[in-house]
Amino acid sequence: MSNRRSFLRNAAALAGGAVATARAAPVEVAPVSREPGRTIPEAMYGSPSKYEAHVARRRTDVLKNRQNLSDWSMTPLQYQPGIITPNGLVFERHHAGVPDIDPATHKLAIHGMVKQPLTFTMESLARYPSVSRFHFHECSGNGLTDWLKPSATTVQQTHGLLSGVLWTGVLASTLMDEAGIEPGAAWVLFEGADASAHARSIPLEKVMDDAIIAYAMNGERLRAENGYPIRLVLPGWEGNTSIKWLRRIKVGDQPWHLRSETARYTDPMPDGKWRQFSMVMETKSVITSPSGGQSLKGPGFYEVSGLAWSGSGKIRAVDVSFDGGKNWREAVVEGPVMDKSLTRFKIGWNWDGAPAMLMSRAVDNNGYVQPTVQDLQKTRAIVGFVQHHNGIQPWAINEKGEVRNAIGQA
Amino acid sequence: MSNRRSFLRNAAALAGGAVATARAAPVEVAPVSREPGRTIPEAMYGSPSKYEAHVARRRTDVLKNRQNLSDWSMTPLQYQPGIITPNGLVFERHHAGVPDIDPATHKLAIHGMVKQPLTFTMESLARYPSVSRFHFHECSGNGLTDWLKPSATTVQQTHGLLSGVLWTGVLASTLMDEAGIEPGAAWVLFEGADASAHARSIPLEKVMDDAIIAYAMNGERLRAENGYPIRLVLPGWEGNTSIKWLRRIKVGDQPWHLRSETARYTDPMPDGKWRQFSMVMETKSVITSPSGGQSLKGPGFYEVSGLAWSGSGKIRAVDVSFDGGKNWREAVVEGPVMDKSLTRFKIGWNWDGAPAMLMSRAVDNNGYVQPTVQDLQKTRAIVGFVQHHNGIQPWAINEKGEVRNAIGQA
Repeated sequence: MSNRRSFLRNAAALAGGAVATARAAPVEVAPVSREPGRTIPEAMYGSPSKYEAHVARRRTDVLKNRQNLSDWSMTPLQYQPGIITPNGLVFERHHAGVPDIDPATHKLAIHGMVKQPLTFTMESLARYPSVSRFHFHECSGNGLTDWLKPSATTVQQTHGLLSGVLWTGVLASTLMDEAGIEPGAAWVLFEGADASAHARSIPLEKVMDDAIIAYAMNGERLRAENGYPIRLVLPGWEGNTSIKWLRRIKVGDQPWHLRSETARYTDPMPDGKWRQFSMVMETKSVITSPSGGQSLKGPGFYEVSGLAWSGSGKIRAVDVSFDGGKNWREAVVEGPVMDKSLTRFKIGWNWDGAPAMLMSRAVDNNGYVQPTVQDLQKTRAIVGFVQHHNGIQPWAINEKGEVRNAIGQA
Repeated sequence: MSNRRSFLRNAAALAGGAVATARAAPVEVAPVSREPGRTIPEAMYGSPSKYEAHVARRRTDVLKNRQNLSDWSMTPLQYQPGIITPNGLVFERHHAGVPDIDPATHKLAIHGMVKQPLTFTMESLARYPSVSRFHFHECSGNGLTDWLKPSATTVQQTHGLLSGVLWTGVLASTLMDEAGIEPGAAWVLFEGADASAHARSIPLEKVMDDAIIAYAMNGERLRAENGYPIRLVLPGWEGNTSIKWLRRIKVGDQPWHLRSETARYTDPMPDGKWRQFSMVMETKSVITSPSGGQSLKGPGFYEVSGLAWSGSGKIRAVDVSFDGGKNWREAVVEGPVMDKSLTRFKIGWNWDGAPAMLMSRAVDNNGYVQPTVQDLQKTRAIVGFVQHHNGIQPWAINEKGEVRNAIGQA
């Protein structure tokens, strides 16, 4: 601590732009301090400052849809400190637009291989014991435009199908116990009420382990585009399996091999076959500051910061390289470090003004180390827009301080 | 767990409103599932569902100001699950309206008993090492209308000057070390850029311990009404000391005895004297569900849930009584349990339909037990609108299931 502090005192104040002032210098009173501010209305739901209008969830600028009933918009991770994404910025992906569902009429049915089929209203669901848990949420397609060469500019476009959320709801196991599972049951179908009727087959083991029938996110009810009034949340699994606008749960003894399990959400393998049911999101990390499209304002001290996460458990450590992977230093991992949750890492860096290549690699509590794309190519077929990209992301910094996406170049 | 589950299976499904359906019952497809939903624009900052318009920050309905340049609006805790308050609902209190500050021109000065006076731009502040920490935020006036008899109806009005926030910023100690504190310094003045120039004297020890110069909350920049672009955050201390719209830090050797330390934010004592600098927020809890103004829909299982917090450390335990304090059961405290942070507690309850009186009492990691108002009256003078009310809050439930504020009646 004292080392860091003396370093800062010696090197960073002026480099960082803090201005030493004369002892007698006046502390100027700005015009804004001379007149009353605005009043607050009787009832309101607040909004960000008008000076923050650039912080928005955005559709990709790489893959444009001609119609956008099946589309997605991405979280601006470059502006997000900490491990929580504000609800207005949580990424979303939809297959037939965002339905407008009245919670007063919406129902959830459980049927199939159960002792007693049940129907729940939103009010009856709220009566059950609840849990609130921090989990990352990531689309299996996060990063699919940027495997071998740069397509996207910013970290919003390379990694923004990722958010951090405190989910609240009822454990799926509570409702399954209520219905009573019949012997031989092994898979569970979850179906959404959107016009695409998006659905997935989920192993019963995962459902009974930690699946949540969620009605709230980050301290309030779900947003419409995130599944209002209820959705499935499968912690650590690819986002499309966490069915939104949930209307139906059917228990069976084998998977249904739905379109979302054959034509979509599968991964090509080197032997020409396609992998199904690759639902765990692999251990991954990315530096969010500095990141693509940003600029360093001259040499000096910078805090390099980013996010790490693992669908297999907790983050044990994150290493950062400033020279394209030749040397690595261990970053500080900021607590609380939680299971299948975004984890923030930080490391101080004194930039000397020379070109640099920044990379991060996460290590999870199983000892798994985030791979490079080259590593991944040994076991996967990287052809076109392939899902499940957890390769290391390099950011190149030139002598002007400009930060650029350097995937494929490190 | 198995006990809870079998209890639920036996007692709660039908009581909670889940409807057992015949095995052959159709799973009806709603009209909303038959047509595409709305599309998502190119860039957006999302909003709550139109069905959640009742969830709003509200000015009090107990103390009305004729003008509201000095006013406050309160968090709807009855609708908040978990330990995070969405930024649109974080409570706010202002003394001269909400100023509109351009971060491009705003500056922060450090002067007084320092080796080198410094001025920071918002950009230069962002260069320093940062921290992100979960802390509760509470106004010292929280509950001041409801000491001896009920004035307020809902928990929003009795306890809604309380929010849970993940703050991000630079430790004040980092900036103080940068300026260099002179020998003999003991107190620090923090002053806001609002028209009231709200200011407080803070002991140097607290400033160097855990004070944060915060620029972000819950994953994005501060909201205007919460101090944009920068504010002080003093974890666990009364909200008014965490100066918003921060413009000036002056280091001295004694407190300044400002208006906010003599005419305001002081507490009457039984001997007729007034207590100054009572800045730690005492250990406290409140049941948020069920709470005032809500109704139970008939006998059966309910999850009773609430919040606990302590300005002195962590929550060790929360007890809940259903009979006005005669008997107590220990609730489940949901992790992560963090220092000076909101902590969620939950306990199952099978309501038999008879009148009941619900209360919660928090115990912190020092062994301090949340007192009743009667306990507090032994050491405090409760006359009028007194601050620092951490007494136990009772909620009365009648045979119709209606929940009412029962302060002074338990």
